[in-house]
Amino acid sequence: MRPETAPARTARLACRDGLIVPTAGMAPGFTQCNMISLPKDWAWDFLLFGQRNPKPCPVLDVTDPGSFQTALAPDADLRRDIPLYRIWRDGVLTEEVPDASVAWTEHPDLVTFLIGCSFTFETPLQQAGIEVRHITQGSNVPMYLTNRDCRPAGRLHGNMVVSMRPIPADRVAEAAMISGRFPAVHGAPVHIGQSAALGIADLSRPDFGDAVEIRAGEVPVFWACGVTPQAAVMASKPPFAITHAPGHMFITDIPDSHWQV
Amino acid sequence: MRPETAPARTARLACRDGLIVPTAGMAPGFTQCNMISLPKDWAWDFLLFGQRNPKPCPVLDVTDPGSFQTALAPDADLRRDIPLYRIWRDGVLTEEVPDASVAWTEHPDLVTFLIGCSFTFETPLQQAGIEVRHITQGSNVPMYLTNRDCRPAGRLHGNMVVSMRPIPADRVAEAAMISGRFPAVHGAPVHIGQSAALGIADLSRPDFGDAVEIRAGEVPVFWACGVTPQAAVMASKPPFAITHAPGHMFITDIPDSHWQV
Repeated sequence: MRPETAPARTARLACRDGLIVPTAGMAPGFTQCNMISLPKDWAWDFLLFGQRNPKPCPVLDVTDPGSFQTALAPDADLRRDIPLYRIWRDGVLTEEVPDASVAWTEHPDLVTFLIGCSFTFETPLQQAGIEVRHITQGSNVPMYLTNRDCRPAGRLHGNMVVSMRPIPADRVAEAAMISGRFPAVHGAPVHIGQSAALGIADLSRPDFGDAVEIRAGEVPVFWACGVTPQAAVMASKPPFAITHAPGHMFITDIPDSHWQV
Repeated sequence: MRPETAPARTARLACRDGLIVPTAGMAPGFTQCNMISLPKDWAWDFLLFGQRNPKPCPVLDVTDPGSFQTALAPDADLRRDIPLYRIWRDGVLTEEVPDASVAWTEHPDLVTFLIGCSFTFETPLQQAGIEVRHITQGSNVPMYLTNRDCRPAGRLHGNMVVSMRPIPADRVAEAAMISGRFPAVHGAPVHIGQSAALGIADLSRPDFGDAVEIRAGEVPVFWACGVTPQAAVMASKPPFAITHAPGHMFITDIPDSHWQV
């Protein structure tokens, strides 16, 4: 282990030991990832789905079949180092567990995809003096299922999920530019204001995560979200999948700055 | 056809009618692509190779098996609209042909990958007043096989190929920044100066394309190149492949600006 990755490793080990919390703000400066594991038979469809939908599904690493190791954090155990996992059967969420080791044994050939997460540009936003409300509130980021179709790939289809951060109107452009420098982790917002046009009826009732306060003078800003694969699982019903629970991410050894262009 | 894509379509039809020239500078402002077609059995390995090597192999579109159509130019015919194709058997280049229709029939399930090309940021370079020497010379861009391993994927492995443009020393940083805004089409340079460190013995003898003049005060600047898949074909020996000939690209309907972050 390189000493400079100690904060990431410490956070992973805390999760392995049973800590169950949303990871926004944990190990600041280290890239966090969404995760989905699918039987090998579905791996081509998913990798193509990511290629065709790079805003919500930027694939940062792919494991060998059956492996629970990743180049993004060589000493990590993908079965145990995420705070909370979801087990899906035929598109239905059947369990949430803090340790997916047992579920992992159900399929010997799971291929695991690690997908960029917008938490990666929250540190640069904060460094620019832009408040990230869900971090201030100590809650999970609010996420919404939109009316926007993803481009299908094989058997996989579904709508895009977005995360939302309220930003003061005079900082929205800067938030767009800062996040836009990180295209590998969702990049610039996909939508700014006008939430009804995304099919979001009520911002105070997110589909995933927690509602956050939106203050006078703030605009809701929407970024493509790595929970989109879970929406695709619900819509496409693969026989089996393991994902992270929304907001409960895999923390890698890679510095956020690695993804900046 | 949208009228605004007419220059791209005109260029493709000229190639379909038999024009055999390097495409740098053709249909300026429209994205050009590298191409590789592989039997479906090799498609997973290649898509993963692209994910693991996004600098040389940014995958912009993937066809369905057996299809020769792409979302990047719906009226194009991928078998005929590239000026010059290469046919590979067991890793050996066996033919160069201006029309790959016959070769395409050898395998009913070819999956075709279109890969970003550095020609995409040549227009912005020129607009900034940075000369692109191979365009001025009317020759093909010089390309070199380096000593840098790509990260393998399944049966695919090989070294990275780079393209080179000589840039005045006081414009190199600007060239890096301009191209860096286009990460989907190779992005920022991978190496600036010091060509021996890349294993390049003699810049006047490129492995692909044509040599260009390097003037006093200019620095050779190296970008990851979409000919890298051809180096992987040579090293990994899939039974069959069709690629473009280096520098002879597929011209899409997508404006270059689409890829800018």
